[in-house]
Amino acid sequence: MNSVASDPALIGVDWGTSSLRAFLIGASGEVIDGVTSPEGIMQVSGQSFEAILDRLIGPWVAQTNLPILASGMITSRNGWIETPYAEMPLGACGLAGALVPHEIANGALVHFVTGASIEHKGGPDVMRGEETQIIGASAQGLKDGMFVMPGTHSKWVQVAEGQIVDFSTYMTGEIFAALKEHTILGTLMEADGFNEEAFEMGARAGLDGRTNLLNNLFHVRTLPLMGKIPKVATADYMSGLLIGTEVAAATQDAEDIGPITVVGRNDLSDRYETALGMAGFNSRRAPDDIVAQGHFLIARAAGLLG
Amino acid sequence: MNSVASDPALIGVDWGTSSLRAFLIGASGEVIDGVTSPEGIMQVSGQSFEAILDRLIGPWVAQTNLPILASGMITSRNGWIETPYAEMPLGACGLAGALVPHEIANGALVHFVTGASIEHKGGPDVMRGEETQIIGASAQGLKDGMFVMPGTHSKWVQVAEGQIVDFSTYMTGEIFAALKEHTILGTLMEADGFNEEAFEMGARAGLDGRTNLLNNLFHVRTLPLMGKIPKVATADYMSGLLIGTEVAAATQDAEDIGPITVVGRNDLSDRYETALGMAGFNSRRAPDDIVAQGHFLIARAAGLLG
Repeated sequence: MNSVASDPALIGVDWGTSSLRAFLIGASGEVIDGVTSPEGIMQVSGQSFEAILDRLIGPWVAQTNLPILASGMITSRNGWIETPYAEMPLGACGLAGALVPHEIANGALVHFVTGASIEHKGGPDVMRGEETQIIGASAQGLKDGMFVMPGTHSKWVQVAEGQIVDFSTYMTGEIFAALKEHTILGTLMEADGFNEEAFEMGARAGLDGRTNLLNNLFHVRTLPLMGKIPKVATADYMSGLLIGTEVAAATQDAEDIGPITVVGRNDLSDRYETALGMAGFNSRRAPDDIVAQGHFLIARAAGLLG
Repeated sequence: MNSVASDPALIGVDWGTSSLRAFLIGASGEVIDGVTSPEGIMQVSGQSFEAILDRLIGPWVAQTNLPILASGMITSRNGWIETPYAEMPLGACGLAGALVPHEIANGALVHFVTGASIEHKGGPDVMRGEETQIIGASAQGLKDGMFVMPGTHSKWVQVAEGQIVDFSTYMTGEIFAALKEHTILGTLMEADGFNEEAFEMGARAGLDGRTNLLNNLFHVRTLPLMGKIPKVATADYMSGLLIGTEVAAATQDAEDIGPITVVGRNDLSDRYETALGMAGFNSRRAPDDIVAQGHFLIARAAGLLG
């Protein structure tokens, strides 16, 4: 709620696997109102996507005839409307040109922002939703450099002049969870507060020994077994080891990389900033709500703002 | 069963996490009789270790007063008698000197073969059971070079003049299972026969991109998603990727490495031989029952063979 807000101009929806965020966006790109829901695309359980959307943003739609943009895993095979992937380089204009409109029951159009793909030597890489956040960051002056987006599948995104030019996905978060819950490594772990020393010890091992993750992970077992780290620190050691390994791999070919922008505000982002600092990189945080800024820039490039 | 066997001289027991093998061994080191059981140390469920052993090898013990050697995870914290780790270099004499005798109800002694540990930069490494197999291989003329022992936690062991001088553990097998069963990577996998082409494609990616496992694993999802490999081949692609990554990491510092000895006779060993060949290494198979040979050499070095 902003007391000097302009009139509403756009509704932006960031609809991911495990949650949904919707924004009422003003004519200057500012967020006027917002709503969040745990109804990610994997949690819709029998409801239609349209019914969920109508319930959440219905009050905004009723007021006016605003354009609606939706981005994220909602455009994947398991989502509402599957859209093709756009290719690199990719900016607001490219995403605007690839919007996929879909008419809903009340006659309004939902414009789906498509995801991005790139072909690397080892195989293809894909994203859905992150491209909109990265475009939004450029509205905040972050038009160049490396971005890291920590999460279940963290993304490293190279941006030049406001366009995405390269990106890679790291399975780090999901692998951490699978190892902790479903391997012998989890059996020695005990819950406690964050142990920064153990995290940094693990991050150092990951940064130094990055070619050897399959071996280094065994140390998550032997270190507490031999009394070298306490059991309450073991999960943080493994977290550091995996994040350090990721940082080393993602930056290995980088020259003159400049400050790295960390997207996110949670504890996980703090861990990435620690590991980046240990690896000798400067880092900074992206502002909140860059996804809404992305919706705004793409809608404006598409001529949807009237 | 060997029609020209000498008299029984020793009982050897290889007691691991998920199974147990016992051997009646002759005075020349040959295997006269053998028994296997799924009663690994994690499957004893209320029975005592002694009761299990008595049931399995009782008929042999009743005949004679043979010495008994036991090796494997049976000497770990969750086993029967916890023994300390021996240090490198380690051969038959070192293991003989570190035997831990334990008297059982019938007055017989079980001599426990202790495990081995080594301190690497990233943390300690440990083994229990594999040291006995490696010592046994030296009885077959395999006294030098690199050994790989594929499994849940595969071991790479450097041997010189019949002594273990270095080793490392790779979590590859357990990580494969956790990723297949408990991450999004498993959701696209369909069962079918072994797909060698997909395995080799994965192994090549692992050998080439070894610093980047956390990223390469994401391709296990994108390759079938984009139709680049069939869903029935996805598990074998991931198997190749992990084994290739392991082979690259384990051999990265090796110079003039010579033929690598693969311990094992199953499909997994075949996969390791394929990946080793792709990496340019010659390989050979260790004979069967080297663990019984190891029990024999250690018992002889300890003066237990009368």
